[in-house]
Amino acid sequence: MTVSIVGIGLIGGSMALSLKESGFTDIVVGVDKQMEHVVKALELALVDKVLLLDDAIQQADLIILATPVDSLTTLLPYVLDRVQNQVVIDVGSTKHPIVESVKNHPKRGRFVATHPMAGTEYSGPEAAIRGLFENKFTVLCDTDESDADAVDLVRRMYRAMQMTITEYDSVSHDVHTAYISHISHICSFALALTVLDKEREENRIFELASTGFASTVRLAKSSPETWIPIFRQNQDNILDVLDEYINTLLKFKGLMLSDSYEKFENYLGKASEIRRILK
Amino acid sequence: MTVSIVGIGLIGGSMALSLKESGFTDIVVGVDKQMEHVVKALELALVDKVLLLDDAIQQADLIILATPVDSLTTLLPYVLDRVQNQVVIDVGSTKHPIVESVKNHPKRGRFVATHPMAGTEYSGPEAAIRGLFENKFTVLCDTDESDADAVDLVRRMYRAMQMTITEYDSVSHDVHTAYISHISHICSFALALTVLDKEREENRIFELASTGFASTVRLAKSSPETWIPIFRQNQDNILDVLDEYINTLLKFKGLMLSDSYEKFENYLGKASEIRRILK
Repeated sequence: MTVSIVGIGLIGGSMALSLKESGFTDIVVGVDKQMEHVVKALELALVDKVLLLDDAIQQADLIILATPVDSLTTLLPYVLDRVQNQVVIDVGSTKHPIVESVKNHPKRGRFVATHPMAGTEYSGPEAAIRGLFENKFTVLCDTDESDADAVDLVRRMYRAMQMTITEYDSVSHDVHTAYISHISHICSFALALTVLDKEREENRIFELASTGFASTVRLAKSSPETWIPIFRQNQDNILDVLDEYINTLLKFKGLMLSDSYEKFENYLGKASEIRRILK
Repeated sequence: MTVSIVGIGLIGGSMALSLKESGFTDIVVGVDKQMEHVVKALELALVDKVLLLDDAIQQADLIILATPVDSLTTLLPYVLDRVQNQVVIDVGSTKHPIVESVKNHPKRGRFVATHPMAGTEYSGPEAAIRGLFENKFTVLCDTDESDADAVDLVRRMYRAMQMTITEYDSVSHDVHTAYISHISHICSFALALTVLDKEREENRIFELASTGFASTVRLAKSSPETWIPIFRQNQDNILDVLDEYINTLLKFKGLMLSDSYEKFENYLGKASEIRRILK
């Protein structure tokens, strides 16, 4: 089995490691627009060889598109135009706009929309790590639009990566990820910017930053180049969550201003429900 | 040296472990209003014995007040009324209201206001852990109001706990902690409540929650009983930060609504400055 991975960054690179190590694939071909990524991916032995996109499509049984989501809506139709019987997947953090971009494509059946739910705040090939996906969830979307053999191959791939497979329609996927992934990045970016802004007046402001602050603001280290396209593609859902989040903060503010600390305490008590989810 | 610790929870209990282990103290006396805490602290051997407050004051060389900050403004004057030459410290997350509560007390010199910057999202004596304070910062506030020998003893204590000591005036301390500690808790509580609220419509909402979400929302597991008094005592500073944070979020929203994604990307790029602080 030959797998071509287009975009050898954190996700593409970590998948390369995982697919090779599990024996799912014999050869991993890398494709990347950025010369530094290509050089680094070869140096780190994330890929066996590097090809131009058209050749990488022809030589592969499975093509994984791991580029930023804004590029996928043009890259995916381009790749599907060039496949015969190969299977193509994407691993983007949004799903509906990507699925829509090939809705009426004659080769739609060869495409499976996926989203392995794993990552770190780092990016690029040097961010690729072993075991990133183990025991995490991966989502397959709108699988009734894909050929059965294609879905089957992708399922086998994610099982080899030791992931738990779950299915969503692409619209629900985008609502859910807005709530449990995209908004977390918004919160962290905003918190980092707020405190960095204060640093201009109070130059010792970070001296006392402890592990709680570090945890809340960790995602602000993420790459804007990855996240801006996600915010753009999932704008409507993210704006909904953002409005609800701001309303919650305004409710906190109102409770404080009206000195309603008993009510505030009861309200915060409900947040402890989160212990059910976070072990 | 005998140390009495009033309030044997996460912080008091972890200090007990650290002070005993470092050899700074021979005997740790525990005081707690809650019977379950007393029983648990003895069972876990966090303390050598348990006494009522007045006796614990008399028998100690150093008295550590580790109760929620709302109780400190009455507990601290009560304790100072009863000391001869003992040293008293608090370890609360706010400083100015606590210092104010004993401003004109005849024994003010025996008190040193401190804040060891360490914690976890857990609470109670079973949350006490070894090494919680090692290599963290601790703050001493308004030390010119304290007797030199008292400050000296407290410095020796924190050095025994392997903490780096820094000094602030209590007003600055409260501004800084609003930005790098208190607001993080506000963000996390609000995010948890926002997503939990959505769960009523979308019951699989947490299925896809990954490590990024867990990190941002971790502090929402903290005890409202600890944090509500902090929010109340530091209300003015926290409202300032909260306003700035909400403004940043509204700026994000405006950039999205006006499709200004290039500007948005430049803005988020500034957040990467946070890498300087978070290694």
